[in-house]
This record gives sequence, structure tokens and C-alpha cells, in this order.
Amino acid sequence: MNNYMLKDENAIYYECGYSCDNALYLRLGSEAFFITDSRYTIDAAEGVKNAQVIIDGDLYGAAAKLLKEHRIKKMTFDPKEWTLMGYEKISKDSDIRFDAVQDFSHKKRIIKTDKELKILAKAAKLGRKAFGDLANNFRMDGKGKDEFALTYLAKSILSDFGKYELSFDPIVAIGPNAAKPHARPTNRKLFKGDLLLVDAGLKYKRYCSDRTRTVEFGKDFTFDTHQKFKRKKIQKAYDTVLKAHDHAIKKARCGMKAKEVDALTRDIITRAGFGGYFVHSTGHGVGLDIHEMPYISAKSDTVIEDGMVFTIEPGIYMPGEFGIRIEDMVAMVDGKAKVL
Amino acid sequence: MNNYMLKDENAIYYECGYSCDNALYLRLGSEAFFITDSRYTIDAAEGVKNAQVIIDGDLYGAAAKLLKEHRIKKMTFDPKEWTLMGYEKISKDSDIRFDAVQDFSHKKRIIKTDKELKILAKAAKLGRKAFGDLANNFRMDGKGKDEFALTYLAKSILSDFGKYELSFDPIVAIGPNAAKPHARPTNRKLFKGDLLLVDAGLKYKRYCSDRTRTVEFGKDFTFDTHQKFKRKKIQKAYDTVLKAHDHAIKKARCGMKAKEVDALTRDIITRAGFGGYFVHSTGHGVGLDIHEMPYISAKSDTVIEDGMVFTIEPGIYMPGEFGIRIEDMVAMVDGKAKVL
Repeated sequence: MNNYMLKDENAIYYECGYSCDNALYLRLGSEAFFITDSRYTIDAAEGVKNAQVIIDGDLYGAAAKLLKEHRIKKMTFDPKEWTLMGYEKISKDSDIRFDAVQDFSHKKRIIKTDKELKILAKAAKLGRKAFGDLANNFRMDGKGKDEFALTYLAKSILSDFGKYELSFDPIVAIGPNAAKPHARPTNRKLFKGDLLLVDAGLKYKRYCSDRTRTVEFGKDFTFDTHQKFKRKKIQKAYDTVLKAHDHAIKKARCGMKAKEVDALTRDIITRAGFGGYFVHSTGHGVGLDIHEMPYISAKSDTVIEDGMVFTIEPGIYMPGEFGIRIEDMVAMVDGKAKVL
Repeated sequence: MNNYMLKDENAIYYECGYSCDNALYLRLGSEAFFITDSRYTIDAAEGVKNAQVIIDGDLYGAAAKLLKEHRIKKMTFDPKEWTLMGYEKISKDSDIRFDAVQDFSHKKRIIKTDKELKILAKAAKLGRKAFGDLANNFRMDGKGKDEFALTYLAKSILSDFGKYELSFDPIVAIGPNAAKPHARPTNRKLFKGDLLLVDAGLKYKRYCSDRTRTVEFGKDFTFDTHQKFKRKKIQKAYDTVLKAHDHAIKKARCGMKAKEVDALTRDIITRAGFGGYFVHSTGHGVGLDIHEMPYISAKSDTVIEDGMVFTIEPGIYMPGEFGIRIEDMVAMVDGKAKVL
């Protein structure tokens, strides 16, 4: 693994502390190169650590030239990260052996350093605080507003009015719209007694937070996990999701496979008769990317270790009726899951 | 071109009127298929026109199966749009001839239909109105605010408080920060007499607007192109950019090559002695993507035709001092450039 090449913005940031939307990073033995175009000359000179900055409008041409000059024989890369065009430009007329390693950078990043854990804990803390502020705001001003307006409020408050970037476009879904795990806003308006699902996160020092709460909207609602719903069917589904969520956080251990952690939530939901309505995995790793390793899915044999950070987010989705999801981020510390 | 495959979200939207962040589109002769995962079942069923919706967690596997069933012999695709992994999954163990055509979808989309022209004109109109609203807001509330807060205000107003998506994160740059064509916000605060550059756009029915103005901030400022600056050097650079901008819009004609349109701005800036400080192209096409064909660059032999929509955005960037850019969108109509 002495030589590798990266194209993804976060993968590059992880190596040298700076990145932008048009960059290429080469690690050649003990040397490293950050290649970008002239729009980023000033920022790259200031931000890039431990790599030589090269300004060239033709990133791939500049990289191919460096590989040749350094007489590189073998090169590791992630085939998910490179377009066919980029790969062909850099590998054309070369006798280098290119080793495709899927998720190369994500694998490097699966165990967080202490510094990363502190940043992620801060991101999660800011995200939790933002949910509190959002509840205050929705209690005062949410009634009668549609999902577009509520999503805008969520963006404003999550970003602390422009101070933080968001991990992703927040999901604010009312009633049956919450049955879509990746709901987009509609004209549906929020009224007392409506089910309200909010899935949102912000970035602190480029690291993501991620959190979901489902509540019954009313003048006293909070984003606490203890929630009362008028409809018995919703309450039953909610209590099942909460039980699955709490159980997985309590029982997740280092040494388990990710699919065993997935089973901690899935078995409870299946036994309650909702198995067919839990249409996604239990969780995903969180770091510089909002979705990274480990994936807490029924298929994953990844062994859970200290320093991993991931979400626990079981859900039940009844098409046309409602959707429920409760999500927290955990870090594995001393063998157990600690809620961030 | 009877068979082609698409992976890009906007390329797919152009074909079937719906798209999402995990989709694959196949055109196989007279048939078409839209493949996505179960998170988008409800929306895809509602939104996709003229294509059969297939729900499958393994997009590439489902696509490979369809190619086999339809005994496809030849397939066109854009190597910029496909990752090496995606391409290999779909082409593995197949004797199909895959023809790589760079910018395949962008080439299809370079001449806008009348319907698209109307949508783009509306997007531009909304963008222009938003700049007016932004000026009102900055006059009242901008003084003393830093670039983070001003960028947040720009996002709020451009989106009409959540009603529209943005074409890109707005650029709001003060003084020397404007010398970076792709400036990111800083803690720098806005005061009377400061140079202020705003580059922003919004999406209407998924089509982008794009607009840049550079002004001297004060209590009576507007985003009009007639601007007075205290510093003579800035005024000279500004007048040069405005002259280049107006000249190109007046003189651009169908039948010219894109590089001839680029020369319309570049020659004026070069003759004024600022040639080395105009570090980018004159403009770019605008449509579903904020950057698409035609590219109005010194290297492009693309012949300009009626129905093309692109920006005219000359600029002068003095590192550490200031940056100026004036940008409008034009559509080619009856052989001439019409400002949208």
C-alpha cells in the first residue's frame, strides 16, 4: 500500500487536511502530491499539509507524468472513486499494475482516532442541541407550515444560521410522507396531532452528525424518545422501534459482527410483526462522509471494534399511513456502544 | 444511438422526468427502464414517464440481466458518468460492444427545446428578482455581518426561504476574498466602501439560474451593473469587465465558434492590460446542470446555434487585492444573444 491515488474529496482531506471539488491526490512511497486547478491556488497553498501542491488544469495528465517520473510499478485505487474516463487517462500507455481495492479510503477510516472521536462527539452534541432549538421553533412557528417551510427552518437552525454546513438535506416528513425513508418535502402542512419525523445533521470541522426523531406534533412536544401517539397502531410501532433502538445500543459489543448488531434491532421488530416494514439496515458508519464503514446490515461480516462510530436507526414504514425512525450515533468505547 | 445507459441524476431526469440519487437508466431500442432501490418505490412509480420502473437493490446486476434478456449487441455510454466499478459490473462476462461517448447526455441537451427555454427564462427571472431582494436585505442588515452570515442570507433569499433549491452554494466574497473565483466564506465582515461580489442562482423546475454582480457596498447600493468604486484601479478593472461583458452579449452570433465568443471578452481585457488576471473561461452552458455545454472557452470549436443557453461572465482577479466578475445568462434566439 505504499502507492495509492485518491479522487474523492473527503478521502483526500483525510490525507492532507485540505480538499476541494477538483483535486487528485497521489501517495508515492514517502512523497505525496495534491493536484488541483488554478481556481484553488491560494487556498491549496494555505491548507495542504504533508503534500506538494501542483497546479495544473489537466489533473490526470499531471498525475500520469508524476507516475512516470517516479517510475511507479504498482498503484492502489478504489474503483468506486474513479470514473472510467479518469482511470483510463491515468493508466493509458502505462505498464503500472493498478490494484482495485473497493472502499480503500473508507477502510483506512473505519477506526476513528482520538482526535476524530472528539470532533464527532462535538458534532453530535451540536446536532442534539440543534434538535432542541428546532423543537422550540416548531412549537412556536411550525403549526400550519408545509414541509418546504419546515425543511427550511430545519436547515436554518441546524446550520446555526449559516455557521455550520449540513451533513445532508434534512428530512422533515409529516404523517404518510414519513413512510418514505428518504422523503422529499411536499405541500403537506403540519397540524396538531400529526406524526412528524425529522432526520438531520450538521458538520463540525467537516465531520458529520446524524440524528432522527419521530414525534406527535402538539404545543408541548419535544424530541425526547418518550412519545405518546393517539393512534394505537402508531404507538405500537413506535414502542417497537424504541425498544429495538435501546436494545441494540445496550447490547452491541466489540467482537460482534455487524450483522449481529443488525439482528439486535431486526429480531425485535420482526417478533412484533413489523419485519416486512423495516426496509433498510440498522445503521451506517459516520465520519467525514455521512455514510461510511461499518455498515450495520444483515449481510455484513465486519467485526465491530473500539473506535468505530455508527448510527443505530431502526424504523417501521407503513406505506400510505406513517413512518417511524429513531436514530442516534454511537462510538464503540471499551467494548460497548456509547451514545454520542 | 438506439441503446444507451445513463447513471447521472440529471441525465436520467432529462429522459423520463424523474430521478433520484441511486438510479440507472437503460434505453434499449424502443423500450426504456428506470432502475432504483426500494427507498424510492413510491416516488418512482409516481414520477417516471415513458420507462418501466424496476426496483432492485443491485442496480448493476438488474441492468446486466436486462441487457442479456434483450440480447443487446451495442451500448453507448459516457465514461465520465460511470465509475470503473459500475462499468465493470455491467460489462463483465458480456460480449456487448460498449461505445464510450464523452458528454453523451450533455451533447443531447446542448440545444434547449422551447419548453426548456421558457423554464430557463423563468429561472433567470426569479434569480434576478432574488438579487433585488438580496440588495434590499444587505442594505438593511448586511453591515458588520461576516461572509458566513451573508452567505446564509443569500441562501435564504435565493431559495425564497426554502421554496427553491439552489443552483450551487452562493459565493459572497468581500474585498480580497473576491480574488478567488470560487471563494469560500470567511470571518471577514462587510463595511461601507467594501467591494462585494455575489455569485448565485436558484433552480426552477430543476433548471438552474446563474448570475454574478460586483458592487461597492454602501447604504444606497444596488446590484445594477453601473457601479462606482473609490479606488481608481478597481474602477478601471470594473469598467473593463463591464465593457467586455456588454460587448460579448452584443456581438455573439450563431455560426461563431465558442472560442470566438470567448475572444470577444478576452481581447478587451487583454488590451486593457489585465489579460493575465482573467483566469477562467468566458462562460458555460446552463440547464439541468449548472455547468454544461457549450463551454465558452478559448479552446472550444463548438459552433454556436439558436437554442443554446450559456453565461457571459468575464472577470479580473488581483490576488490579495480584489476580484471582479459580472455574469448574465443568455439564450441564442434568431441568431443573437438575448439576456435571460
